[in-house]
Amino acid sequence: MQELEPERIARLEEDGPRVVLLDQRLLPYEEVDLVCTTAAEVADAIRTLAVRGAPAIGVAAAYGLALTALRGDDLAEAERELASSRPTAVNLFWALEQMRADPTPERARALHREEVERCHRMSAHAAELFEPGTRALTHCNAGGLATGGYGSAVGALRTAWERGLLASVLVDETRPLLQGARLTAWELEHAGIPHAVIADSAAASLMARGEVDLIVAGADRIAANGDTANKIGTYSLAVLAAHHGIPLYIVAPSSTIDLATASGDDIPIEERDGSEISTRFTARNPAFDVTPAALIAAIVTEDGVHRPPYAESLAPVGAAA
Amino acid sequence: MQELEPERIARLEEDGPRVVLLDQRLLPYEEVDLVCTTAAEVADAIRTLAVRGAPAIGVAAAYGLALTALRGDDLAEAERELASSRPTAVNLFWALEQMRADPTPERARALHREEVERCHRMSAHAAELFEPGTRALTHCNAGGLATGGYGSAVGALRTAWERGLLASVLVDETRPLLQGARLTAWELEHAGIPHAVIADSAAASLMARGEVDLIVAGADRIAANGDTANKIGTYSLAVLAAHHGIPLYIVAPSSTIDLATASGDDIPIEERDGSEISTRFTARNPAFDVTPAALIAAIVTEDGVHRPPYAESLAPVGAAA
Repeated sequence: MQELEPERIARLEEDGPRVVLLDQRLLPYEEVDLVCTTAAEVADAIRTLAVRGAPAIGVAAAYGLALTALRGDDLAEAERELASSRPTAVNLFWALEQMRADPTPERARALHREEVERCHRMSAHAAELFEPGTRALTHCNAGGLATGGYGSAVGALRTAWERGLLASVLVDETRPLLQGARLTAWELEHAGIPHAVIADSAAASLMARGEVDLIVAGADRIAANGDTANKIGTYSLAVLAAHHGIPLYIVAPSSTIDLATASGDDIPIEERDGSEISTRFTARNPAFDVTPAALIAAIVTEDGVHRPPYAESLAPVGAAA
Repeated sequence: MQELEPERIARLEEDGPRVVLLDQRLLPYEEVDLVCTTAAEVADAIRTLAVRGAPAIGVAAAYGLALTALRGDDLAEAERELASSRPTAVNLFWALEQMRADPTPERARALHREEVERCHRMSAHAAELFEPGTRALTHCNAGGLATGGYGSAVGALRTAWERGLLASVLVDETRPLLQGARLTAWELEHAGIPHAVIADSAAASLMARGEVDLIVAGADRIAANGDTANKIGTYSLAVLAAHHGIPLYIVAPSSTIDLATASGDDIPIEERDGSEISTRFTARNPAFDVTPAALIAAIVTEDGVHRPPYAESLAPVGAAA
């Protein structure tokens, strides 16, 4: 598998009807389809992380609304259920908005296809930031699994690799749910890109040893001023990167930019159950953090490489534009 | 259990003879003794982390040499085996040196008792750095398990708690082997100190939220200039703490200071097997990192609170002095 087929990650089968999702909780050990026959089941798949990654959540929600229409169920109720599944990624709300006027299978499939096309375009732009021999580091999974196909930050790595610009990738394992160790490493292995998984806390010392040239990460929501919510640990990497003079690039589709959110302070941060960290002791489990725009060297979308000040460079790009 | 009894962590039984270690790999789920009847078995217990923590490794090695003498085995060979078990913690080599002239059970027990006494004294000094309501963060396990009793950084937390100066503790889970989530949380629970385990990568965002007043960590080796090797992730915390204006304190016995090592560049860093990170994909697993002295607000030993410049303040304290 050079590239994960989009319909393997998420699809709508009208004969049923049903939404079929590749269950990301079981990867890389098992490749199992999760079948959802109602929007409530799709919402549950999002809530329990069977499907995760901001753009992929949006795609799944779009299929969930189309499924609802095919079944003749209450669309407003389905939208409420899907919208309440996870709070941070804005792509979910964007996709529901996109589907409202035309909740058909065709529209959902077009939305999915367009997200994957955006990935290819942003990855081509992001690859311009790589030089021959680049040693990259990435966090969580901003891969094909997270976007419905090809990937955002991992898409950038794919394109840089195809252009001969990428030497190797350090993959933060990304506790607590190990999206890096399970999903990104799996995608890089299939793509034939040299990689090594590391403990999240080892990134700093590998930066200090001079083994990291740049960092690429995805995003769950980008505020109008460029502040970016992403998987817990991204802010940590951003501070460490600044200390070591290493650029951090955010790679994400325009559907992740939320011009209605002024700054990171206004982004709701999901606190997940502590049992994801420890089943024996009390734990705290913020699932995301916010990286201030000042620590981000560039934000790359399908429209190009956007530089600070982001209030200006993102204004023509965002989903609310 | 308010305080873990030193002889529960490590002891020598002359009737046997045998060294009995509490197997730290199984905590907090099972409390199982590991019985070693030769120095080679003690070395293996150190290598496989049944006993870990720089001072506790030294204590186990001391008992291993006394065991060798009781058995009438070759002391030079036993010392070689013990010395090769792990490279980074200097306490191992210090303890072997201490035992060479007098490899008796009495000397080993005195060394153990003295390490625990040092913990109480350094903890009293370190508690002076706390103010009422302090919210601390700690990494890995610098507790009684790591020192043979009471603890260094966790000892500081115990004493601060007894003095009414400590509000709560955030515990880095400390991947890959979860010494924080397994051992430190267990010790804090028994001591009745409020705590919450967090993913290592969440520390930065909790600092940014203003929820961390200070950080305490132990050490595996402190160079003459104050550069400090400790569990992977300590350097990461140090950079993050500096960014947020939070002091990082190292709490360790003088047996951890190695005046023969000029700077952190000269400290050997153990690379452990990648399978501790991932059994499915290639992984890199540096077990320690080096925090430059400039990022350490103070180094606390049984002799007091030492401030920069450490080349001066540590010179009268170090093990080689």
